[in-house]
Amino acid sequence: MEKKRIQIFDTTLRDGEQVPGCKLNTKEKVRIAKQLEALGVDVIEAGFPTSSPGDYKSVQEICKSISKPIICALSRAIEKDIEIAGNALKDAKMARIHTGIGTSDCHIRYKFNSTPEKIIEKAKLSVQYAKKFVEDVEFYAEDAGRTNNEFLAKVCETVIKYGATVINIPDTTGYCLPEEYGRKIRFLKENVKGIHKIILSTHCHNDLGLATANSLSGIMNGAQQVECTINGIGERAGNTSLEEIVMIIRQNSHLNLFTNIKTKLISETSYLVSECTGMKVQANKAIVGVNAFSHSSGIHQDGIIKKRETYEIINPEDVGIDQSSIILTARSGRAALAYRYKKLGYSLNKNSLDLVYSIFLSYADRKKEIADKELKIILEKANIKKKRMLHNSGRINVV
Amino acid sequence: MEKKRIQIFDTTLRDGEQVPGCKLNTKEKVRIAKQLEALGVDVIEAGFPTSSPGDYKSVQEICKSISKPIICALSRAIEKDIEIAGNALKDAKMARIHTGIGTSDCHIRYKFNSTPEKIIEKAKLSVQYAKKFVEDVEFYAEDAGRTNNEFLAKVCETVIKYGATVINIPDTTGYCLPEEYGRKIRFLKENVKGIHKIILSTHCHNDLGLATANSLSGIMNGAQQVECTINGIGERAGNTSLEEIVMIIRQNSHLNLFTNIKTKLISETSYLVSECTGMKVQANKAIVGVNAFSHSSGIHQDGIIKKRETYEIINPEDVGIDQSSIILTARSGRAALAYRYKKLGYSLNKNSLDLVYSIFLSYADRKKEIADKELKIILEKANIKKKRMLHNSGRINVV
Repeated sequence: MEKKRIQIFDTTLRDGEQVPGCKLNTKEKVRIAKQLEALGVDVIEAGFPTSSPGDYKSVQEICKSISKPIICALSRAIEKDIEIAGNALKDAKMARIHTGIGTSDCHIRYKFNSTPEKIIEKAKLSVQYAKKFVEDVEFYAEDAGRTNNEFLAKVCETVIKYGATVINIPDTTGYCLPEEYGRKIRFLKENVKGIHKIILSTHCHNDLGLATANSLSGIMNGAQQVECTINGIGERAGNTSLEEIVMIIRQNSHLNLFTNIKTKLISETSYLVSECTGMKVQANKAIVGVNAFSHSSGIHQDGIIKKRETYEIINPEDVGIDQSSIILTARSGRAALAYRYKKLGYSLNKNSLDLVYSIFLSYADRKKEIADKELKIILEKANIKKKRMLHNSGRINVV
Repeated sequence: MEKKRIQIFDTTLRDGEQVPGCKLNTKEKVRIAKQLEALGVDVIEAGFPTSSPGDYKSVQEICKSISKPIICALSRAIEKDIEIAGNALKDAKMARIHTGIGTSDCHIRYKFNSTPEKIIEKAKLSVQYAKKFVEDVEFYAEDAGRTNNEFLAKVCETVIKYGATVINIPDTTGYCLPEEYGRKIRFLKENVKGIHKIILSTHCHNDLGLATANSLSGIMNGAQQVECTINGIGERAGNTSLEEIVMIIRQNSHLNLFTNIKTKLISETSYLVSECTGMKVQANKAIVGVNAFSHSSGIHQDGIIKKRETYEIINPEDVGIDQSSIILTARSGRAALAYRYKKLGYSLNKNSLDLVYSIFLSYADRKKEIADKELKIILEKANIKKKRMLHNSGRINVV
């Protein structure tokens, strides 16, 4: 069976930046956009031009600097927004306007004080208007996660009729469970006239820790594009992490999917985004956390030393990290200790290792981590103890 | 339909602590254990007593300090380990030994240099031996995620026959996709003799960002216990986050499940664990990140001000956070600005708001976030501008 390509729509510079304390200036945005281009993303959502003059300028500059990915700009379903987005995109080699409106009961009633009929009319007009500026128009049905499927299908059918090329089904509030989100995508695939002419896109939020699983469920049920951010940054608990969904697709060949992402650039891209935005990545973040390929327990270290695959399903080199690391703590065993001593040039026999290990544990119980210089001190202490033992018993045991 | 209780097995103090740089001393471990007791967890995995004298002592002290949850200690399928675990647990009101062995081909061949038959024999002997110390014996089939389901069923049948009360199906390497993990649990529920006498437990790792989704899939397919950690800390990319799985269960009443967790204590527990372990929680972490209930984009802020539910599915108070916050950045709109000025005691009419907003944007494009003191400066600037306009036009507009 031929593999199907999943398009990666990166929204680090739009939804990702939509975070307290992480505003990026134009220079930083262009730098990140260039890195995303090298990484191989299909679409860069560069900003929301109507939101501020600075953001408008950033979108303009990105259009001038980037040649391969489609450059996308966000707008509400408002003529002025769409016009500003269209103008900001003028210099893009390939441009997309991303426009849309809330479709859930909650959004229609409380945010817009409107009716379903009026919302469909606005959706239609927004796509029609965006088509005046660009051929490639993506429509978002905001809060689609909580939108009734029949109504959502009607909205989709309408915007396809008026020229939408991509439809985005955002789980804006991170509300859906994976099965539910997947069923929604499948429902649209099976019930919307013309759905096979357009690209269906996932856009999931991580409020319950399920953004990646929901995106996966979406593409397993027919979506062809995933909207995501580097390090999963974004409004509230953030968006689907690009690195997670890409590596899931790569590690699971039975899914018959692929992306164009150059995974070896994931680690450096993660670092750049974290540096520019000031959004720190926690140590236990999947794929890009500093501990993602570190092993500290004795059982795991012993396994990794025997064969990497016992405790690692991803080769760290595939995401641009040199090697997995063996960290020495009070949970480490003899195998890890001998391994690290070997790396320092010392080969220990069983008796020596037992002695060194007992001294090591008394150190490690008091400290978080044992470094190379401490290993040398421990070895010296062991040698002194050995000499005393030798003196007492006449036996010798060289460390 | 009556709701089914899911037991929460917290392993923050064992698998959670198994992390480079996060070693806890006995005092910190007891403090966290007391907090976990208040939080309402069913089981506290207190440590791996054979790993170091310090960890042995911590398990002992936790047994003396805790009365409600079961106290559990880890051991390999080795007599000495089990004996040490049994001894460390002597003072527990309710004690459980958690013993087990790797069951995947990879672990059997490369880690143990053994055969499936010998592994089953070791599993049996370990449970038999643990039963000499405690009635409640949990067996883990390490790397069950990559273990052939038929063989895994055989292992389960054997340990049930010899007295295991709980069986843990760890996806040790974070390898499984949610559907796959759920199918595994269902297969065991349907094919293992005696499975209905015991508790089946999930234990998922987050290497691909799917730990929470896999645990959810596990309980939706019949597992009755979830092993998890506060903030999702643990080896490599960590474990299932307690706060995520608990809030998923709470928010989705159609699952017909419940836990005994007092969710209002989640936030303070997260903070305590982060403080003691030094493991920082990223801002966009679901439920417990500092941004989890913050709103910075204009569209979202406008919605939140009109009705909280437009962009928030969880009431922050349910997890012990005072309220959602409206953060002012260059992506904020007029509604958020007016809202924050109102909180400071200023009511702005439309014209004044337009003027103040344009000054605000020129500030916000240069800064990450606008604080109250800057709002006052912006207001003064607007007033000066107004006075000039008044001087020139004769019109007046009070801010």
